[in-house]
Amino acid sequence: MMKIGIDIMGGDFAPEVTVLGSILAQKELPHDAKLVLIGDENKINQIVTREKFDSTLWEIVHTTDFIGMGEHPSKAFAQKPDASIPVGFNLLKSKQIDAFASAGSTGAMMVGAMIVIKLIPGIIRPSIATIMATDSNVPSVIIDAGINPDARPDVLIQYGILGSLYAQHVFNIQNPRVALLNIGSEEEKGNLVTKAAYPIFKDTKAFNFVGNIEGHDIFFKEKVDVIVCDGFVGNVVLKAAEAFYHLVKKRNIDDPFFEKFNFETYGGTPILGIDSIAIIGHGISTPLAIKNMILHTYRMVKVGLIDKIKEAFQP
Amino acid sequence: MMKIGIDIMGGDFAPEVTVLGSILAQKELPHDAKLVLIGDENKINQIVTREKFDSTLWEIVHTTDFIGMGEHPSKAFAQKPDASIPVGFNLLKSKQIDAFASAGSTGAMMVGAMIVIKLIPGIIRPSIATIMATDSNVPSVIIDAGINPDARPDVLIQYGILGSLYAQHVFNIQNPRVALLNIGSEEEKGNLVTKAAYPIFKDTKAFNFVGNIEGHDIFFKEKVDVIVCDGFVGNVVLKAAEAFYHLVKKRNIDDPFFEKFNFETYGGTPILGIDSIAIIGHGISTPLAIKNMILHTYRMVKVGLIDKIKEAFQP
Repeated sequence: MMKIGIDIMGGDFAPEVTVLGSILAQKELPHDAKLVLIGDENKINQIVTREKFDSTLWEIVHTTDFIGMGEHPSKAFAQKPDASIPVGFNLLKSKQIDAFASAGSTGAMMVGAMIVIKLIPGIIRPSIATIMATDSNVPSVIIDAGINPDARPDVLIQYGILGSLYAQHVFNIQNPRVALLNIGSEEEKGNLVTKAAYPIFKDTKAFNFVGNIEGHDIFFKEKVDVIVCDGFVGNVVLKAAEAFYHLVKKRNIDDPFFEKFNFETYGGTPILGIDSIAIIGHGISTPLAIKNMILHTYRMVKVGLIDKIKEAFQP
Repeated sequence: MMKIGIDIMGGDFAPEVTVLGSILAQKELPHDAKLVLIGDENKINQIVTREKFDSTLWEIVHTTDFIGMGEHPSKAFAQKPDASIPVGFNLLKSKQIDAFASAGSTGAMMVGAMIVIKLIPGIIRPSIATIMATDSNVPSVIIDAGINPDARPDVLIQYGILGSLYAQHVFNIQNPRVALLNIGSEEEKGNLVTKAAYPIFKDTKAFNFVGNIEGHDIFFKEKVDVIVCDGFVGNVVLKAAEAFYHLVKKRNIDDPFFEKFNFETYGGTPILGIDSIAIIGHGISTPLAIKNMILHTYRMVKVGLIDKIKEAFQP
């Protein structure tokens, strides 16, 4: 039985929204998976009773403590061992759960990922892979979305490998096209980092490199499946795409096409490169976003993503 | 009488589109300005006759040569003195025209800007300031949009000055709010460059620094008027915004709000930091884009932007 840990205390509207999202997710999860809710048992059960949900399907690990958004991540992680995020990572470390998802402090999630779980040997830096909606029904992957604002070429090439495996196994994209996000399609274009990275990308056999793409290509399926960039550019692009979704909503345009740009559709992004599955959700997650984060987590465990990554980085 | 030079041979659909755009512009230009068309006189006059336009309003500087998009900019500039872009810059240098606008080779425009016109003393690097549509009727300025992919903090602070003057004098934004584009609002967030730039921005009295903004804030008027970033990030954001406009059009959404994101609305972006007014248009410019590029150029000359910049950088 696969067990997915979910941080009930994390996110701006916890525990109400996280419990409601967990209820939605548990109803859709296949029978080989159950949720492990990490949070205040009384509050969880109040919502469960109110919602008339059969809570025998899941487990609860009780804790009332949590790490707030304003707290210093590593200090809080060390000083609050009973907070939901440290508890989740310790369950993950001891394999009592197979994955851990939280819409709480991103900083504390990174601390748990790096200190408790640790990187897979051979990987230089962790990254966050974000899903980007496109003009087709298949999304693209942007890696990194904000963990490493200054990524060296040797880190970028590892993003190519991680992103390619993620796209292939979790989104069923065969032989994913990996591109460098750049400011021109020609090899010699770019900043110091992309110019240094291009020759290494061109020579690699680790993934299907298709060259440079530009900002315009991010949202179209024509050229690319996996977009490699440093975390600074990735984060700016991701937030710009969110802004466009908000502009569309602000104009009262109700087109299902643009709903793909709603972060709730995907819910969460994995920390790739660590030796287990940890997923970060948006602080303002809704029940729908929490549900989709959990279902997305299920797929990552189910396809054995961590083993695929370990194989690729085997010395 | 102000004279605005326009490159008739530049752009993917020249000379048809550039002449039609010039006709539209000449009709709207105030009486203190006239156009100087640089290009093939026979072709210009064919279109003028067909369109039944009174061409006594403008001047023509005849040349049939031009620099193609695929040519090496500095080589072509040196080897083709009679091509429209070198001719335009020499007219600008000798003050026979007050400004020069082209939708042709961006590289050749930069060569002309740097070699023929040169930087204003005190300015380290030139930049391209792009106009970005927002949720309000007032646009914002993004500087740099692609000339310097690796900008140092001392260059970024000059972008703040240039962008602030451009926003104030050309868009009538009083005391423009200047922000650093970053991946978090806190001072300590960012990549190596933005983290090094922040303290210098905080200390400057040269403009109204309001702190960091994130990708989401670019398209909203709430926080910022002038967005400072390196040319790599600026170029990616600009092209992503173009992509969103295309997605909206692709969905057949006909909302005048999103027409603001159509590059044709603004038409051209100035090369800031040089000792005259040179404007770069989009290669795929339509007559509307050419017209708006010319009217935008008129405003820059009219408000004396170059003198304002020289005052600010006076030793």
